[in-house]
Amino acid sequence: MNTNRQWLLANRPHGLVGDDNFEYIETNIPEPADGEVLVRNLYLSFDPTQRGWMEDRESYLPPVAIGEAMRAGSIGQVVESRHAGFATGDLVQTTGGWQDFVIVAPDQALMGLNKIPAGVPPEMMLSVLGVTGLTAYWGLLDLGQPKAGETVLVSGAAGATGSIAGQIAKIKGCRVVGIAGGPEKCAWLKNEAGFDDVIDYKNEQVDARIGETCPNKVDVFFDNVGGNILEAALNHINMHARVVLCGGISGYNATDPIPGPANLMNLVIMRARMEGFIVIDYMDRAALAVQELVGWIEGGELKYQVDLQTGFENIPSTLTRLFTGQNIGKQLLKIADPA
Amino acid sequence: MNTNRQWLLANRPHGLVGDDNFEYIETNIPEPADGEVLVRNLYLSFDPTQRGWMEDRESYLPPVAIGEAMRAGSIGQVVESRHAGFATGDLVQTTGGWQDFVIVAPDQALMGLNKIPAGVPPEMMLSVLGVTGLTAYWGLLDLGQPKAGETVLVSGAAGATGSIAGQIAKIKGCRVVGIAGGPEKCAWLKNEAGFDDVIDYKNEQVDARIGETCPNKVDVFFDNVGGNILEAALNHINMHARVVLCGGISGYNATDPIPGPANLMNLVIMRARMEGFIVIDYMDRAALAVQELVGWIEGGELKYQVDLQTGFENIPSTLTRLFTGQNIGKQLLKIADPA
Repeated sequence: MNTNRQWLLANRPHGLVGDDNFEYIETNIPEPADGEVLVRNLYLSFDPTQRGWMEDRESYLPPVAIGEAMRAGSIGQVVESRHAGFATGDLVQTTGGWQDFVIVAPDQALMGLNKIPAGVPPEMMLSVLGVTGLTAYWGLLDLGQPKAGETVLVSGAAGATGSIAGQIAKIKGCRVVGIAGGPEKCAWLKNEAGFDDVIDYKNEQVDARIGETCPNKVDVFFDNVGGNILEAALNHINMHARVVLCGGISGYNATDPIPGPANLMNLVIMRARMEGFIVIDYMDRAALAVQELVGWIEGGELKYQVDLQTGFENIPSTLTRLFTGQNIGKQLLKIADPA
Repeated sequence: MNTNRQWLLANRPHGLVGDDNFEYIETNIPEPADGEVLVRNLYLSFDPTQRGWMEDRESYLPPVAIGEAMRAGSIGQVVESRHAGFATGDLVQTTGGWQDFVIVAPDQALMGLNKIPAGVPPEMMLSVLGVTGLTAYWGLLDLGQPKAGETVLVSGAAGATGSIAGQIAKIKGCRVVGIAGGPEKCAWLKNEAGFDDVIDYKNEQVDARIGETCPNKVDVFFDNVGGNILEAALNHINMHARVVLCGGISGYNATDPIPGPANLMNLVIMRARMEGFIVIDYMDRAALAVQELVGWIEGGELKYQVDLQTGFENIPSTLTRLFTGQNIGKQLLKIADPA
């Protein structure tokens, strides 16, 4: 392979992100300078937060520039290293973007360049042990602070983050109810992931069903969705409830601002807290979390699903899958196998 | 006086509360049983939260029943005591309601029956040392956790709670900006209460003015208003900001639910927290707070304003004043002087 295929951000989406927001080009493979590493991308991670990176506004990361390769988490393999810490053939995790090859300066890279421990499959590394799994871990435990016997409600429950958050809540002894779209996702949550109950927001009345499935009210709401789902959940919060704002996917592709919940005063009446977080802030503690997550996986307490697409040409449409609810579990795309 | 004048809740308001939601009656003066105290009401407290008590819905207190004397905080004087802890002539604070006389069972009373320390004027006891002052104290200090040098934004800043919250933030070394309605209120905040800057929401663009007056962004937003003001403030929160949800007066008289802020995702991006509270939960610690508040008043660091109305017949319309923004500072009504 002598060319570097890339999907560049061509324009900023208005509404649902799609193929026409990106431009395919082929360029030369870049050459690493001193202190840099050339990485070939093997797996790409797809995350709802990428939609926010495409907007031209201040956020927790700068926007992706027009004409820049779309930013994405990735697993790759070192092709050429001019950095003492890395050698050709190393499997690494980084933010490689939508391209075959990326130059990484390990000491300056966004979210770093990290070697993958031997024997850990890329699918696991990019899902339950990756950003989404760690987001679930800290969001639930640090902000949600679930206690045994409490009720934890999770929206986007079949997603890469929600499914892990709910299972960790089960491990902590909570009653766990998930909200997801469609019978297939709901069946997986109940039968495989061990959720106590599920709500199919596409086919059920969410507000009423929260009341039915959470008879002791909701102590922790782990929200990936926002909008109407958040409002429905706030109708059922318990005293001193914790609402963990992880994401708001229902609004990410909206062309106009989506009104927030009309019942925020329930936070006052119930002395409740709503709090946001970004997993980047916790990365210095990643090793401990990974250790605990691996223990739960090996013990059979924590299941994860990966939706693995293939084909470089399918990269843009794979991002759209997140926002049309097509994925179950972590959305990945495999570009190539390791050498 | 041989009759007990009362204003009963006649029907539940739809929209702005007004005189026609109440019925005036005259009854006999009730007689205390063993363990009870007969109190004559002298001063009534008017608080935005009373509007919520009139709704037929679960909240932090049960609704006022139709046909019941409207619930209200009060200061009164013991007329007859059949409780060992109280004697005729004692000045007391309780929840006396809209009536001349009330029977209180001190050991069961809502928010208790408490003797007023000698020498404390009723106006001070029902304002800065009362529920509104204590709400400001704990809301700001316990939830807001202001640190010297931080920026604290207060909505409803000329109100009984907001004005105290802002001044406590000044005492703690913060830059304090208040949002209030009209030049008179704004002038008082700046010239008397020592706010660093003020925003007149009736005559200025709140969102833009927050940006101007809070160049280092908002670390603590103490919100009494909700609605558009809350949304504007969320546009300017700093990293790890604390949004103290004290009240949402903009929605209390709405006939339809008012949408919440469309920018809740800013809580995620800024890793910020929004939290509600009810002052009742802190009442076991009231003595310490009162001691500190008195110290600040005596030291000239803490000013308070009382809007004192008179006339039993004006009780219902005095409640409406809160929601039309007529009051500056704590709204009270004096029924009678102590004997």
